[in-house]
Amino acid sequence: MNFYKCRGFVFLLHYFFNKTQKQIDYMKKVAIGVDIGGTNTAIGVVDPEGNVMVKDNIPTPSHGDIKKYMADLSAAIQELIKSVKLLNNDLEVLGIGIGAPNGNYYKGTIEYAPNLSFEGILHIIDMLKSHFPEMGALALTNDANAAAIGEMIYGGAKGMKNFVMFTLGTGVGSGIVVNGDLVYGADGFAGECGHTILIPNGRMCGCGVPGHLEAYCSAPGMKRTAFELLAHYNATDSLLADKSFNELDSKMIYDAAEKGDKVALEVFDKTGKWLGQGFADTVHHLSPEAIFLFGGPTAAGDYIFKPTKKYMEENLLPFFKDKIQILPSQLKPGDAAIVGASALVWKELEK
Amino acid sequence: MNFYKCRGFVFLLHYFFNKTQKQIDYMKKVAIGVDIGGTNTAIGVVDPEGNVMVKDNIPTPSHGDIKKYMADLSAAIQELIKSVKLLNNDLEVLGIGIGAPNGNYYKGTIEYAPNLSFEGILHIIDMLKSHFPEMGALALTNDANAAAIGEMIYGGAKGMKNFVMFTLGTGVGSGIVVNGDLVYGADGFAGECGHTILIPNGRMCGCGVPGHLEAYCSAPGMKRTAFELLAHYNATDSLLADKSFNELDSKMIYDAAEKGDKVALEVFDKTGKWLGQGFADTVHHLSPEAIFLFGGPTAAGDYIFKPTKKYMEENLLPFFKDKIQILPSQLKPGDAAIVGASALVWKELEK
Repeated sequence: MNFYKCRGFVFLLHYFFNKTQKQIDYMKKVAIGVDIGGTNTAIGVVDPEGNVMVKDNIPTPSHGDIKKYMADLSAAIQELIKSVKLLNNDLEVLGIGIGAPNGNYYKGTIEYAPNLSFEGILHIIDMLKSHFPEMGALALTNDANAAAIGEMIYGGAKGMKNFVMFTLGTGVGSGIVVNGDLVYGADGFAGECGHTILIPNGRMCGCGVPGHLEAYCSAPGMKRTAFELLAHYNATDSLLADKSFNELDSKMIYDAAEKGDKVALEVFDKTGKWLGQGFADTVHHLSPEAIFLFGGPTAAGDYIFKPTKKYMEENLLPFFKDKIQILPSQLKPGDAAIVGASALVWKELEK
Repeated sequence: MNFYKCRGFVFLLHYFFNKTQKQIDYMKKVAIGVDIGGTNTAIGVVDPEGNVMVKDNIPTPSHGDIKKYMADLSAAIQELIKSVKLLNNDLEVLGIGIGAPNGNYYKGTIEYAPNLSFEGILHIIDMLKSHFPEMGALALTNDANAAAIGEMIYGGAKGMKNFVMFTLGTGVGSGIVVNGDLVYGADGFAGECGHTILIPNGRMCGCGVPGHLEAYCSAPGMKRTAFELLAHYNATDSLLADKSFNELDSKMIYDAAEKGDKVALEVFDKTGKWLGQGFADTVHHLSPEAIFLFGGPTAAGDYIFKPTKKYMEENLLPFFKDKIQILPSQLKPGDAAIVGASALVWKELEK
């Protein structure tokens, strides 16, 4: 990969444009964030304020050799480091943080991730160490945990000691912070609130157990709610009535709600009711200061935040009422995964 | 109160009987545990191994002046301290730990406890400090949190960093330990797992919200299950069929199960199913090493532990299966509240 050919260089010039020398000096320490997804792996160099200075991505192979993939990933990271040093040779790269599905922080492994083609237990951090033996901090966790740490280091949770992050997307992920530290639990897999039981014997969850929060409050969960409501009301006049199951998505539901479509509005009310119920359970476990929401469906704003808050409050014990904020994540949607992963590095160096 | 008249002195002689000088020297540091209940307040001096050396109790007044109550409590504590020093003058009292309903660790307060006659917010630790200005550690938390710390300091959770304690009694309490510390949350009230929603719109909980775990898995919850099953099966031949709602208790259900009564056996199966479902949600939040069970219904042993384990496992994500132990508390039933409260002192002194 020739760096000058890559789109990252323009991005990097843009980053330094308008920065004073003082600002550039402050930005001398940087962290690498890596987001391993099912099809793509995104990599970025992130400054102490959570801005992505330069980024690139490589395909996550649909089959193949994990060692070769790790060599490719390491080469891409090296190229990015070279590129930022071209413009500021004093730059110090403090470490590499990785967000990945089924990531285990304690072992530095990815374990049996259903959406990755590599099978079994992958010793990612050990392999990365062989490519970067001098690197200060190398750490890995799952995507939602990385988002929670990102929120704490760069985002709306700065200064908070007890909060929970929920990520709404294809699934529902969560990351829990207690006393200023992420909760990994006994084996590194804590924070799977998407798989708490919302409705016993309810909708089938992707994990094979019925009734989980994820089956109701993820983006596909909202689509399932829309289809149930269309069927329930025989709502032939709904704006959603002409979409197939595979066509409909949460953005379309939002657009229909904006036009006053009753089914779409009820989808948001029900999703908020279920999220609020789940959040009440989380509050009764952890008594957080705030719950942050991240992901596509949160773009619907009040449609989702208002009912969630209302139904959470209805389910809380008196001494929790009117205390817990439900807030939108302050991480930028496009870069959040990289930024969250890079935050792991700063968190490691606090220790 | 004249100490020599009190039953505690005989108890104390019994404690020192058979102890060698070496053992007595080791026991030189002690902690006071106080358990504030609706009708009685129990006080004990506890050695580093969790043995109650001497104990006493005073009535928690059904009405009256909180300042007078705190003066009486402090006088009773002073008497107990005098009594242990009579036999070993080198004895060092390290602090006083209090377990109380709606206890707030951060503020040292009891807040709006429905079963206490004192109203509003009670500044217990501030008042105690005026009576014991020289005392090293003074701390207060709710009963279930105290039991969790007791389990960690003296009981089956020694050496565990991540576990949860559930106390089954009139209600269902819980205390959560993460990374070796009790989770108090943002405002000191974390660990109210008894008030997580088990069955939406289900049985009314004492707190006024329907469907909570406590409404199903507490001792009164088991009685409610028995009555539902008697009604469902029209079970006139059940051993429980001759008891009124106010007569029946969890011990009678256990005795009937021992005799093979089908309704009683199903009560345990259902209670285990609901506990297991609730525990799965707790595991998905926290990934603990173990969950401890304390309280009357746990005396039923396998009747309650087996179905709880079975149904918890059914609801867990693959990477949690066969990892989380469900264990009986190792705290002695009679003294657990005092012992748990005293454990707060050792925990404070670790800091």
